[in-house]
Amino acid sequence: MSKYDVIIIGGGPAGLTAALYTGRARLKTLLLEKIVPGGQAAVAWAIENYPGFPEGIGGPELMERMRKQTEKYGVEIKSGEVVRVKLSSENIYSKREREKIINTENEEYKTTALIVATGTRPRKLAVPGEERLIGKGVSYCATCDGPLFKNRKVVVVGGGNTAVKEALFLSKFAEKVTLIHRRDELRAGKISEERAISNPKIEFLWKSVVTEILGETEVKGVKVRNLDTGKDLTLEVKGVFVHVGSVPNSRFLKGVVEMDQAGFIITDENMETSVKGIYACGDVRKKLLRQVVTACGEGATAGFVAGQYVGKYKKEM
Amino acid sequence: MSKYDVIIIGGGPAGLTAALYTGRARLKTLLLEKIVPGGQAAVAWAIENYPGFPEGIGGPELMERMRKQTEKYGVEIKSGEVVRVKLSSENIYSKREREKIINTENEEYKTTALIVATGTRPRKLAVPGEERLIGKGVSYCATCDGPLFKNRKVVVVGGGNTAVKEALFLSKFAEKVTLIHRRDELRAGKISEERAISNPKIEFLWKSVVTEILGETEVKGVKVRNLDTGKDLTLEVKGVFVHVGSVPNSRFLKGVVEMDQAGFIITDENMETSVKGIYACGDVRKKLLRQVVTACGEGATAGFVAGQYVGKYKKEM
Repeated sequence: MSKYDVIIIGGGPAGLTAALYTGRARLKTLLLEKIVPGGQAAVAWAIENYPGFPEGIGGPELMERMRKQTEKYGVEIKSGEVVRVKLSSENIYSKREREKIINTENEEYKTTALIVATGTRPRKLAVPGEERLIGKGVSYCATCDGPLFKNRKVVVVGGGNTAVKEALFLSKFAEKVTLIHRRDELRAGKISEERAISNPKIEFLWKSVVTEILGETEVKGVKVRNLDTGKDLTLEVKGVFVHVGSVPNSRFLKGVVEMDQAGFIITDENMETSVKGIYACGDVRKKLLRQVVTACGEGATAGFVAGQYVGKYKKEM
Repeated sequence: MSKYDVIIIGGGPAGLTAALYTGRARLKTLLLEKIVPGGQAAVAWAIENYPGFPEGIGGPELMERMRKQTEKYGVEIKSGEVVRVKLSSENIYSKREREKIINTENEEYKTTALIVATGTRPRKLAVPGEERLIGKGVSYCATCDGPLFKNRKVVVVGGGNTAVKEALFLSKFAEKVTLIHRRDELRAGKISEERAISNPKIEFLWKSVVTEILGETEVKGVKVRNLDTGKDLTLEVKGVFVHVGSVPNSRFLKGVVEMDQAGFIITDENMETSVKGIYACGDVRKKLLRQVVTACGEGATAGFVAGQYVGKYKKEM
């Protein structure tokens, strides 16, 4: 079983920055990433508020740069979805801290410190038709799938920052974008709001929810209910982009570290969870603001603190 | 008296990122900077661990990029050293929060929210000769003054991250660099330590302190005491670079917000100080890790939280 000083789960901005710091501290580091590194930031088409890029930068390019930087310091990067984290039962009567055992589907690893940077995934609508039509017109990523809907009508469900940004992106391709939101105002950044409201291709259905997605083998339309009047209407569209919030990727840690009800991991301001030697950073952490730059700042702190922990641990052995 | 939504004091990474976020939130923002923007980061000759720059980036260039990015969003940037912050005495019996009154030497400003990002300055040695010889061989910034010491002998005092990095930088110019440290091991990053120890131009005087800086109109040498033997020796050098820690720039806030004994400002994890509507971020904050990327992350949070505060404040008015 391979043994590391630090294992980092997740290859988005938080995980890559944590690895940059542990790599530079010459700690034996493994970064485990589910599919491709970059996390949700890698599908952002333009990031304007990551400091240092005055003209903005594409998500994939920024993540590629971060990955390259981290790889310079000897960090091992592997694919693999972590399914279980256990604390070692060895030496529980000594003062020594317990090692962590990490299982992916095919591998088992041991590590002194663990940094969890697994981020979030899009929340589903949970309406009839949604599961059946995923990839057949239902999407959770306009940046990924938007170009497929050239000159088509699409809807975006949601009114937060991501929903508004994705509607703006879709307006470059689609014939018309209808944004369906349960409230009567957006909750996005001011700049995105202004851009969306003045965009002639974007229309708004306020105080409305999607109750069903229609179509058998591809999306044909959506059923929408107005929450004020209770009346239903049907929109004929080819694409449904769902952006109604996100869910933390933390299930594999249930019962191991403390979380809030939604599954966000609770840490102190130095990223330490309820278990010594396990740290969390980035979007998976319970916190106020989820941004690339806050994820990076937290990743740096987690990497630094994990390094201190490994140093102390080695002295005690 | 000019009135702002948000005033930010300090133009380093934390202050510029806070301004980027308040600017993008369309808040009327003033950034006040003592001399030139960029903070201590602007004098770093190479930053290798700010995510997004795989080849590293010079401090001045990174800060120039951040400044340009922030200016795009209508943030006003002015020079001026803040000498006093007062809370308005108006309406103290109403529910309304109190406005903050900011004084520089020549101007007075009013603001709803205040973000303090004033960073730190180098700590002095406090030995005879130091004050007299500042700018005459005594320096607190190798990056600024190093090139003046081409083919000369210099000492660096200190053993932390900055001291080691500055010694490395000086080794490019100086004939010899002697690093004088009161302990018998360095406390810098592993990579810098390795580089310094293998550098043939750098020598080490362990367990030693500088007791006096010699010379009348220019540095001629230093007196060094060995802490183990108590013996003194004199080194003939032309330059003395002092890197023995840093002091927070927070005196103008004494009695206004809570600080620790050293003057670092105490906040919660959302950067809020003991006074509603006053936030602190970056190096001036009491915290574990002082890095460009942590300063930026905190700046983003401070900017966001200040924006929420201004929004609530305006509703109550």
